[in-house]
Amino acid sequence: MKLKCSAQDLIVGLVNATRALAARPSSPILEYVKLTAADGHIVLTCTDGSLTIRAEVKADIEEEGDILLPGRLLTEIVRKLPEGLVALSVGDKNIAVIKCLSSRSTLSGMPAEEFPVMRDIINTHALHVPQKRLKDMISRVIFAIAQHESRQTLTGSLLEVTKGELRLVGLDGFRLALQTMKGDFVLPEGMDIVKAIIPGHVMTEMSRIMGDEEGAMVTFHIDQGHLMAIIGETTVLTTLLAGEYINYRQILPKDWKTRITVKCKEFEEAIERASLIAREGKNNLIKVNAENDMMRITSMSDLGDVLEEIAIHLEGEAIEIAFNARYIGDVVKNIDDECCMLSMSNAVSPCVLSPVEGDDYLYLVLPVRVSN
Amino acid sequence: MKLKCSAQDLIVGLVNATRALAARPSSPILEYVKLTAADGHIVLTCTDGSLTIRAEVKADIEEEGDILLPGRLLTEIVRKLPEGLVALSVGDKNIAVIKCLSSRSTLSGMPAEEFPVMRDIINTHALHVPQKRLKDMISRVIFAIAQHESRQTLTGSLLEVTKGELRLVGLDGFRLALQTMKGDFVLPEGMDIVKAIIPGHVMTEMSRIMGDEEGAMVTFHIDQGHLMAIIGETTVLTTLLAGEYINYRQILPKDWKTRITVKCKEFEEAIERASLIAREGKNNLIKVNAENDMMRITSMSDLGDVLEEIAIHLEGEAIEIAFNARYIGDVVKNIDDECCMLSMSNAVSPCVLSPVEGDDYLYLVLPVRVSN
Repeated sequence: MKLKCSAQDLIVGLVNATRALAARPSSPILEYVKLTAADGHIVLTCTDGSLTIRAEVKADIEEEGDILLPGRLLTEIVRKLPEGLVALSVGDKNIAVIKCLSSRSTLSGMPAEEFPVMRDIINTHALHVPQKRLKDMISRVIFAIAQHESRQTLTGSLLEVTKGELRLVGLDGFRLALQTMKGDFVLPEGMDIVKAIIPGHVMTEMSRIMGDEEGAMVTFHIDQGHLMAIIGETTVLTTLLAGEYINYRQILPKDWKTRITVKCKEFEEAIERASLIAREGKNNLIKVNAENDMMRITSMSDLGDVLEEIAIHLEGEAIEIAFNARYIGDVVKNIDDECCMLSMSNAVSPCVLSPVEGDDYLYLVLPVRVSN
Repeated sequence: MKLKCSAQDLIVGLVNATRALAARPSSPILEYVKLTAADGHIVLTCTDGSLTIRAEVKADIEEEGDILLPGRLLTEIVRKLPEGLVALSVGDKNIAVIKCLSSRSTLSGMPAEEFPVMRDIINTHALHVPQKRLKDMISRVIFAIAQHESRQTLTGSLLEVTKGELRLVGLDGFRLALQTMKGDFVLPEGMDIVKAIIPGHVMTEMSRIMGDEEGAMVTFHIDQGHLMAIIGETTVLTTLLAGEYINYRQILPKDWKTRITVKCKEFEEAIERASLIAREGKNNLIKVNAENDMMRITSMSDLGDVLEEIAIHLEGEAIEIAFNARYIGDVVKNIDDECCMLSMSNAVSPCVLSPVEGDDYLYLVLPVRVSN
């Protein structure tokens, strides 16, 4: 193998590919990145066994070939190189030589044959989704998924596509996040819905690979147990989480008896202050009392108490309801509007939080039952 | 106690005072901040038993008094307050009420009498030092002091003042940092040198309190075992480290047989690249070989090797010398000049690193003996 490429291009490719490396790999070979040089490109591949990421970098190939090199170490070496052209060559005994200006490193590698092969999903329907919007949707769903859950499906996010809508759902039993993108999605013949439960950490890594340029698209290929996402020069292939996702539509309340409209920033800051005392208590509990266009937020612990008053617009009945401060706080932070609406039926049913403008997304938070 | 003050002023004072709080306080009372309201000011005091920091905040005092409140919690509460005037009052049972706009918190406090008293150093000579320059000197010395050292004095930095010079020294047995400030320092009558060994973490906290404004001064008062530093509205009082500091002048080499002049940035980056492989080896070792106006930096481990070549200006004899990559790297990073000079006698004696311009500071790094 012998090639030249830009140090800047190579580092971008390595950073994206090594996102698939596990913190504690199950086998030493999973610490390596596979480099394949052919057809004017160098292809970098990393895998943790269930997630594989492949990045393509333009290169001037003098001699084709492949090799495995330590993934994180190679990334650090390339990151520290001066700007310019990198010359990479592999000689006898799988020794790679990396030259850039007056810097020369050698790295011991391994033959590429030993690397686990990723099989692309081919001959399936391609689903095209705007990158920037999807990246934003992921960031507003991911915080709500379960971290360590007895029901493994909840550690992933549900992707659901119909002809007119793409939906992302995250929930952990205490709150739910639902993001909707309207669009003209072409589904495989004979299907009227496509569903996939994507592991949470894969969602996060995909969103980091996505860019902010308007017009850029992600292409998805989905089969029974796998998803392939093509994001520019990078391909992500992951196993999906098996099992049925909770029927989240069933949980969404149909109507409300109390609706509060409040300024997001004021609400968020009041929750933050109430949290400081709430978190010293047992349940991280804040109480919300709404009456006569005024909301009172209170918290209490051995160290003291907090009372916050905010002007609101109240429709329907007055209410007293309690929340875990973190759950409601996370949700309010993720509403991208000047005002948000809280719609409730009573103090023990889920509260729906949504922006005042549009119906692109909503959140649902379970209240905490308190005895007075 | 009853007062009003600006939330912004109060947070600055609290942040500075709570720098004295220990991560693991030896007694519960050392988690508190003492608030004393009198004479148009509120004075905030925290201590860990050996370091005390006192910050003064302008306030509109309606009723004088004092109280102890949980230091970190109060700081977080004030930090989250909306901008504006804070009203603070203490009623029965040491309950403090903090009001700001429509936010109202109460905090359980303790009577102030139980707080350990700090005794100021009075009736001693005052030494005035420019703040900005001192802050910079501290940052370039502090990295070289010992972290966990059998000789406790080395966990501090030596402050040494003569009529014409103020010096800061840090050393840990492998490297030494020496910073010099020329000036007209007025010493106590009958003394021609003042010495104090200031604990490393106190140095760090003092430098964080110092500002960057030209003209601002720090005033030091030193007695046998204590140092008091007045930095604007903040007063730092610390016990000094007991014992004799190493006679560092004796270690400084008087002459050299090899002198290398090299561009700092090129040298620093080459060391960084060589470090990536060196740190995988046993001794984090890099070798430096200088001959014919060319420096070769090499490192080696099981994973591979690095060779870096840099153009230099060489005076005197050629040399081959080895260093711990971290020790020499730290020092080069802290040289604030385009070029630096390495002056050596042989491969086993300390190497002196200094800027080409001026003699305000120098570093000394012990080489590592290697058998070829």
